[in-house]
Amino acid sequence: MSTQYPNDPSRRDFLEAVTAVTASMSLIGADAMALATEESKGVSPMPDPIPAFAPIHQPRALSFDPAKLDGLSEKLIRSHWENNYGGSVKTLNAVKQRLAVALADKDTPPFVYDDLKREHLMRTGSVVFHELYFDNLGGTDAVDAYVRKAIGESFGDFATWEAEFRKIGAGLGGGSGWVVAGHNLHTGQIENYWLADHLHAPAATAPLLVMDMYEHSYQMDYGASATSYIDAFFRNIRWEMVTDRLKRVSAWRSARS
Amino acid sequence: MSTQYPNDPSRRDFLEAVTAVTASMSLIGADAMALATEESKGVSPMPDPIPAFAPIHQPRALSFDPAKLDGLSEKLIRSHWENNYGGSVKTLNAVKQRLAVALADKDTPPFVYDDLKREHLMRTGSVVFHELYFDNLGGTDAVDAYVRKAIGESFGDFATWEAEFRKIGAGLGGGSGWVVAGHNLHTGQIENYWLADHLHAPAATAPLLVMDMYEHSYQMDYGASATSYIDAFFRNIRWEMVTDRLKRVSAWRSARS
Amino acid sequence: MSTQYPNDPSRRDFLEAVTAVTASMSLIGADAMALATEESKGVSPMPDPIPAFAPIHQPRALSFDPAKLDGLSEKLIRSHWENNYGGSVKTLNAVKQRLAVALADKDTPPFVYDDLKREHLMRTGSVVFHELYFDNLGGTDAVDAYVRKAIGESFGDFATWEAEFRKIGAGLGGGSGWVVAGHNLHTGQIENYWLADHLHAPAATAPLLVMDMYEHSYQMDYGASATSYIDAFFRNIRWEMVTDRLKRVSAWRSARS
Amino acid sequence: MSTQYPNDPSRRDFLEAVTAVTASMSLIGADAMALATEESKGVSPMPDPIPAFAPIHQPRALSFDPAKLDGLSEKLIRSHWENNYGGSVKTLNAVKQRLAVALADKDTPPFVYDDLKREHLMRTGSVVFHELYFDNLGGTDAVDAYVRKAIGESFGDFATWEAEFRKIGAGLGGGSGWVVAGHNLHTGQIENYWLADHLHAPAATAPLLVMDMYEHSYQMDYGASATSYIDAFFRNIRWEMVTDRLKRVSAWRSARS
Repeated sequence: MSTQYPNDPSRRDFLEAVTAVTASMSLIGADAMALATEESKGVSPMPDPIPAFAPIHQPRALSFDPAKLDGLSEKLIRSHWENNYGGSVKTLNAVKQRLAVALADKDTPPFVYDDLKREHLMRTGSVVFHELYFDNLGGTDAVDAYVRKAIGESFGDFATWEAEFRKIGAGLGGGSGWVVAGHNLHTGQIENYWLADHLHAPAATAPLLVMDMYEHSYQMDYGASATSYIDAFFRNIRWEMVTDRLKRVSAWRSARS
Repeated sequence: MSTQYPNDPSRRDFLEAVTAVTASMSLIGADAMALATEESKGVSPMPDPIPAFAPIHQPRALSFDPAKLDGLSEKLIRSHWENNYGGSVKTLNAVKQRLAVALADKDTPPFVYDDLKREHLMRTGSVVFHELYFDNLGGTDAVDAYVRKAIGESFGDFATWEAEFRKIGAGLGGGSGWVVAGHNLHTGQIENYWLADHLHAPAATAPLLVMDMYEHSYQMDYGASATSYIDAFFRNIRWEMVTDRLKRVSAWRSARS
Repeated sequence: MSTQYPNDPSRRDFLEAVTAVTASMSLIGADAMALATEESKGVSPMPDPIPAFAPIHQPRALSFDPAKLDGLSEKLIRSHWENNYGGSVKTLNAVKQRLAVALADKDTPPFVYDDLKREHLMRTGSVVFHELYFDNLGGTDAVDAYVRKAIGESFGDFATWEAEFRKIGAGLGGGSGWVVAGHNLHTGQIENYWLADHLHAPAATAPLLVMDMYEHSYQMDYGASATSYIDAFFRNIRWEMVTDRLKRVSAWRSARS
Repeated sequence: MSTQYPNDPSRRDFLEAVTAVTASMSLIGADAMALATEESKGVSPMPDPIPAFAPIHQPRALSFDPAKLDGLSEKLIRSHWENNYGGSVKTLNAVKQRLAVALADKDTPPFVYDDLKREHLMRTGSVVFHELYFDNLGGTDAVDAYVRKAIGESFGDFATWEAEFRKIGAGLGGGSGWVVAGHNLHTGQIENYWLADHLHAPAATAPLLVMDMYEHSYQMDYGASATSYIDAFFRNIRWEMVTDRLKRVSAWRSARS
C-alpha cells in the first residue's frame, strides 16, 4: 500500500524510470499474461508488455496521518483513499492490459478500442488528480510569500483567487468534479479551472492545487453541505506542496532559456 | 492576425509575460470596460482588469504556408484557422471578461459562474490544442533518432505507437475530439490519449503531438473519410516540433534534479 | 413542500396545464420581474413571462414515508430529497428566468445562451429523473405478471434484465449517473440504459424504472459500497408504479392505431 | 437500403414487433453466433439471442428525394445518411452483440460493461435522432394551425420559439450536437433543448422537431457557416411530420384520461 509510484517524476528521471519499469516487467508480464490469456484464449498471441500498456501503477501512500486532519474524518479519508483512489489504480492497470490485447488484435473495431481509451483517460485523470489532491492535504502551514506573489500577479490579489476557487467548488456541490489551480504551460498563465469529471483537465497544464469535489470527498462528514467541506479543505492545505510545484514550473521555464 | 501570443512560454519567461500583460492593461482595460459597462449597467462596479480575467489572447499566425500542405487544401486550413480556431480565441476573450464581471458580483449564483467556467475550460482547450496542432503541421522532415528512441522506450517500437495513434483517430471519425501524444508530468510516461471534445485533456500532461479530429479538420477535403485525413495528417507532421517539445520536458526533468 | 407539479401529465391534460400556468402568471411574473430587474437594470425591457421560460416547477412531495424504507435511512432520503432534488428544482426555475432575459436581449452571444441551455437540460434531467426515482421507491409489492411478461419478451427472462440493470449500476459506483429501464418510443424496445449524469438520457424514451447512482444516493448509509445500495434499492422498488408507467405506454400505442 | 425498422412504432404495435423480432432470430442468431464465436473462443457459452441484445437495427430509407432539397446538396445528404447515420446503425448492432457476450460472461468487470453501455446509449441516440432528423426534412409545406397553436401556447408566439431554436443551433456551430423541440412527457411542457452529443437527450421527452448540428450536417455545403445551414434547414422542414408527432402525444394524453 505504501509503495511509491515507480516512475514518479519527483524521484527519478525519465531514463531511470523506464529502466525501473523494464526491470519489473517479468513480474508485470506474468500478471498481464495471466489476465490476457484468460481473455483471449485462441484469439491472438499475447503482445510483449510495453510501458505504455503495462499495469505499473501502484497506490501511493498518504503523506499525512489521516487521523489528524482538521474537520475531515479518518473514516472519510481512508474510504476515499482505499475505495475511490485505490479502485481507480486497479482499474487503470486492468484497462492497460485490455488495451494491449485489443491493440494486438487487428480486428478490434476502432469504436471498441476508443471505449477503452476513454476509460484510460478517465482513470488516468482519477489517479493523477487523487494523488495530487492527497499530496496537497495534511498541512498546517501558511501560504508563503513566493506563492502569494505569483497568485497575486495573476489574480490581482490573493483574495480574488481564493474567492474564485471556492465559488467554482460551490457550483460543483451535489455532483462530481475537481477544482484545479494550475500553471498553463502553453499560455504561461496561472488560472483556476472547473472540471466536471475525471475526463476533464485544462490543456497542457501543471496543477498547483487540486480539490476533489466528487461527493465521496465529503458526503460522509458533511452530507450535502459542499461549502462546509470547502472550508475544511482550506484549513488542511499543505501550502509547501503548492510552493514546491510552482518552483518546479519556474525551474522548467529557466531551463528553456 | 500574425500577432504572437503575448506570453507564449517559448518566447519570454513568466515575469516578462506578466509585465507585458500589465503594460497592455490600459488598452485591454478600455475594451473590457466597454463590454462590461454595456453588460452591467447599474449592477456592480467594474473590477480592475487582472491577467487571469483579461482578454489577452490573440490569434497565433500559422507557421507554414497553407497552400503547400500535402493533401490538406488551403481552403480547409484557412477556414479551420480563421473560423474554428479564430472563433475560439474571440470567445475565450469574451468569456474572461464575463467572468470578471460575474465574480465581482457577489450575487452571481455558483451554478451560473460554473456555466461560464465550463466555457472557459472548453475554449482554453480549443485555443491551446489548435495552436499545438497547427504548430505541428507543415513539415516534410522525418522522425529523428531522439524522438524515435523515446517513443520506442514507451511503446516497444515506433510502429506500435503509430498504430495506436491512428486507431484512436479512426474511432473518433464522424464526431469530435483530439488525439494527443503527451508526456504525463506526473506519471513520467509517454502515452497516447483519446479526447472527445475541448473539455477533455490528459491530467498534468505536456502534449508532444496533437491531431484534430473535429469534422471541420477534414470534411471539406475528405467528407466522411476520417482515415484518409489521418493519412494526410501523417504526411504533414512537423517532427522537429515534436523533438523540440520533448527536449523541453527533458530539460525540465534535469532542472529538478 | 407537498405541492404537486402544476402540469403533471398524470393529473390533467395539456390544455388544462397551459391554462393553469397562464393563470399563475401574475404571481410568477412578479418573481420573474424582480429577478430580471435586478439582473438587467437598464439593459433590456423585461419580456412577458411565457410557459417555456416561467419558473413553474415546484417540489413534488414524496409518495412514501421516508422513515419506513428497508435499508435506506430517513436521514439519507430527506437530505437527498431536500438538498439534491430540491436544489435542482430551484435552479431549474432560476435558469428559466435567466433564459427569458437572455433571449430577449438580441446581443446575447449564442455561446452564452447555450451555456444556460446546457444548465437547463441538466436541471431538467435532474428534476425529472429524481421525481421518477422517488416515485418508484416505497413499495413492498412483487413484480406483477404484466411487467414480468413485457420484460421477459425483451430480455429473454426477468433474471437477465435484472442482472444487466444491477451490473450497469455497479459500474457507476464512485461517480455519478443513473440507470434507466425505459420503453424507447421510436424503436419500440424495452432496454436498460447507462447515464453518467443529468445531461444524458436515452433518446425518445419513456422511463419505466429509474435508479439514482449519484453518490448522494448512498454515501451516507453505505459509504463506497454501491452494490449494497443497489441491493437496498431493489428491496424498495414500488413495482406498481412500473406497471402503471408501462400501461401508459401501451395505451399510447393503442391510441395511435 | 430501403428496409424499414422492423419494430417502428409508426407501423405496428409492440407485440407484433416482438413477434417479428423473434421470428427473425434464426437469421440474427446466426450472425450473432458467428461474431460472438470469433470473439469469445473458449471463454463462455454463447447466450441465446434476445431482443434487447439482438442486432435488429436496419437503415431506414430517406422519405424524400435527396436531389430535391433547397440548399442542401444531394452529395451532403447521401454522405450524411450513408456514412454517419449508416455507420451508427452498424455500430449499434455490433455493440448489442458484444453486450450479449459480455453479460453472459460473469467475469466481465462492471467498468468494461459500462464502457459498452455508454457506446450503446450513444449509438441509440445517433440512430434515433438521425431517423427523426431525416424524417422531418423534405417538406415544402407551411406550419399548420395545430402546431402553431401548441407552440404559441408554450412560447408566447411562434417567433420566440423559432428565435430560440435558431440561437441554440448557432451556439453549437463548429462542434457537435442537436437541437430538439420536444414534448416532455413528465412535465407536460413543449421546450427546445440543447444537446452537445448523441449521449445527451431531454429526459422522458417525445421529440417533435430535430436539427442535426454535427459538422457533417453542413461542412460540405457551407463550411464553417452554421447559420447558413440553419437557414437551409428551416426551408426544408417537413412540418406535417411535426404535426403528426404532436398529434401522437395528444392521443396518448387522451388515452390516459
